Amino acid sequence: MSETQRQMILATFIHNSGAHPGGWRWPGAPAVDQHDFAHYAHLAQTAERGKMHCYFSGDSVGFPSISGKEAFAATDYAGKLEPTTLLGALAAVTQNIGLIATASTTYNEPYNIARRYASLDHLSKGRAGWNVITSASDGEARNFGRDANMDHAGRYARAEEFVDVVKTLWDSWEDGALLRDRENARYFDPDKVHELAHEGEFFKVAGPLNVARPPQGHPIIVQAGGSEAGRALAARTADLIFTAARSLEVAREFYTDMKRRAALFGRNPDHMKVIPSVQFLVRSTEEEARRAEAELLALVPEALALRTLSLQLGVDLSHLSPDDRLPDIPETNGGKWVQESIVHMAREEDLPIGVLARRVVVSRASFSFAGTPEQVADLCEDWFRKGGADGFSLSPNYLPGGLEDFVDEVIPILQRRGLFRTEYEGGTLRENLGLPVPENAFVADPTLGREPRMWA
Amino acid sequence: MSETQRQMILATFIHNSGAHPGGWRWPGAPAVDQHDFAHYAHLAQTAERGKMHCYFSGDSVGFPSISGKEAFAATDYAGKLEPTTLLGALAAVTQNIGLIATASTTYNEPYNIARRYASLDHLSKGRAGWNVITSASDGEARNFGRDANMDHAGRYARAEEFVDVVKTLWDSWEDGALLRDRENARYFDPDKVHELAHEGEFFKVAGPLNVARPPQGHPIIVQAGGSEAGRALAARTADLIFTAARSLEVAREFYTDMKRRAALFGRNPDHMKVIPSVQFLVRSTEEEARRAEAELLALVPEALALRTLSLQLGVDLSHLSPDDRLPDIPETNGGKWVQESIVHMAREEDLPIGVLARRVVVSRASFSFAGTPEQVADLCEDWFRKGGADGFSLSPNYLPGGLEDFVDEVIPILQRRGLFRTEYEGGTLRENLGLPVPENAFVADPTLGREPRMWA
Repeated sequence: MSETQRQMILATFIHNSGAHPGGWRWPGAPAVDQHDFAHYAHLAQTAERGKMHCYFSGDSVGFPSISGKEAFAATDYAGKLEPTTLLGALAAVTQNIGLIATASTTYNEPYNIARRYASLDHLSKGRAGWNVITSASDGEARNFGRDANMDHAGRYARAEEFVDVVKTLWDSWEDGALLRDRENARYFDPDKVHELAHEGEFFKVAGPLNVARPPQGHPIIVQAGGSEAGRALAARTADLIFTAARSLEVAREFYTDMKRRAALFGRNPDHMKVIPSVQFLVRSTEEEARRAEAELLALVPEALALRTLSLQLGVDLSHLSPDDRLPDIPETNGGKWVQESIVHMAREEDLPIGVLARRVVVSRASFSFAGTPEQVADLCEDWFRKGGADGFSLSPNYLPGGLEDFVDEVIPILQRRGLFRTEYEGGTLRENLGLPVPENAFVADPTLGREPRMWA
Repeated sequence: MSETQRQMILATFIHNSGAHPGGWRWPGAPAVDQHDFAHYAHLAQTAERGKMHCYFSGDSVGFPSISGKEAFAATDYAGKLEPTTLLGALAAVTQNIGLIATASTTYNEPYNIARRYASLDHLSKGRAGWNVITSASDGEARNFGRDANMDHAGRYARAEEFVDVVKTLWDSWEDGALLRDRENARYFDPDKVHELAHEGEFFKVAGPLNVARPPQGHPIIVQAGGSEAGRALAARTADLIFTAARSLEVAREFYTDMKRRAALFGRNPDHMKVIPSVQFLVRSTEEEARRAEAELLALVPEALALRTLSLQLGVDLSHLSPDDRLPDIPETNGGKWVQESIVHMAREEDLPIGVLARRVVVSRASFSFAGTPEQVADLCEDWFRKGGADGFSLSPNYLPGGLEDFVDEVIPILQRRGLFRTEYEGGTLRENLGLPVPENAFVADPTLGREPRMWA
């Protein structure tokens, strides 16, 4: 990263056929089969053509809990590819872009996650990242032997230990442990491979991992938590944080708070990047952009909008009319940050439920804007210069057009302004983000590791 | 499959840098980094050039339990890529070959496995398979919160239920459920998507899966169990069975028994393929082949051979001398079939431990042969015609040479004899194996499914 001009980080978060719930119906886009690899390969290659830092793949381990069968049938959330297998395939058809896959700490085991992401990092020669989620819905819980989700505090306590175990597993082979010394029959140096013998509140994991240390040391850790527990986890463990911010003010509050928290954990705040999630609709004129925005929103059935609002608030609003105001919302075990943002938005502008639902269904409380390429670039520059963002996570409304427009129309403006690079500088995602390789925990503290028990 | 001439199935089982423990040290092979995707891409493309049916990727979720630090350091078992992410990547660089990844039923959840393999099947357009293992070692158990492995019977009871749940999850979307009807805002037909509401001894899984039904209906189920419990599981659930057979007689016993068992479960025995695992060393003359065999064996340190014998028998033999005979072996919770085969071999030929160890370290009780291309082809034809095999799973001793030699020297002979095809006939692995698409369980029994609870 140059001293003379701070550079933006640009990522794209790919959500099925588009982040906008009307996106899959957009007449100008091809009718995408979300199970077709060619769809994703084109997107990753388009983002790479734009020199974007990373491609995110979102995930959940179940159906979204949208009530109402017909409202549900209008969503494209349900059928798609699993991220770690998909990103394995994308690694084979891209060269530079970072590949970030979402996986849950509530419904996985640390050893399995450590292996898959280490493997992705090797497959991609150092371009993997893990978006850590705790999974908020009861629908997901029911696929894993539970009747309801773990409570919010328990999920985050488990996530804290989970991430630590995974990072330590990634360190269980020191760099240079792999010898492949044919002459002396030493495939690896056993003194550089360590057992963790971890025993914590949630996990007991011996190790070592059966994958050598990843090229990045650790694949990039990504998080999106906005709640108190989410912020604490992200500030301590994450390299890259994306956030839902409905305004520059909200973005600045979050940005400032997260950098402060990182410093409290003894981290260099520059080594934790904050990128708000944004939805842009780009057209040559403001009028065209507004028209496209309205057309896209008209593709969302009203029932789906209202049911989605219920889902995001974690309460059933189906007994209310679209003209009613939002009642008091009890605390739930779902995603707290999105819930609080929506309630704040409703109260601040005194919005009827019907209007609130249409706004929320588009953006999930994150920032949505329709305008010309110059206006979008101005907005990005403004947030970037005013302490709201280290860059942005673009959620294209529909695909591939929403991503292509940004790459072809907006990125060249940012490049001309010197705010975004014109070529990948580093070989790994970590290098391209300007983040150092983490020190190996077993090298830092030689008393930490044990010799694997099976060697005795 | 033609009525006039029954055709062989040919697979290759890729084990790190080669199935032979001396393989990674073979001077004629390139020094492979097992974390380098290019290594595996070349192998899969070589097998595909030979029109082989499938590429298998073995796996374990931990280090092998070889005692003795220096013996262990001489193995290449420890550091490699995780199969499902690797096969995702291989799907992107191959067109026809089947891709079979190993995963454990003891250390995974059915919902996660169903998703990853459904995803691999979509990514590869119907070329995925799941090699079902139950994981036999305590070293693996210690990575997942346990002190020791589950007992053999418990592991198999869990595996039986696990496979059934995964297959039912694959059926939870009927074929044709995905509508993508933009005009009427129906992304899918909710009447064709079902909740399982499974509640069994080991698992409680609601469903539906959040991936549409795989192109093959079900990815191919592969198994290798030789024990009573393993045979029962395979006969009921597997499409493809590979087995360790040290002679044609053993292969015939297994083949006959498995076809009989399949029929007892009401299955068409032709729809369950049995392929013994074989290691071939191919040279232009018998003498060269024997010499190469001896050279390869000389690359295995004696300590590693003895420790590997201990591992495979599940008992510590380190107090014995190489000239001693094998003592009585108590029953363990490990892999029973391999253990029984080794004990039988030792008793039958009255082998000293040192000799037994060198033989076992090469082949794990499966069939190993060194000879000319014609001799190897003769042997394959003999087993195939005499009721020992539907085909073979080649474990190349070293890589890529062991695979290249088979593809370039042996397969053309089998093709000339009309025993092996010269082109892929079908589009999917299932079609290429001559197996029908399974009927959807929810279509077969409309009382089975429920409407997903979240839609109420």
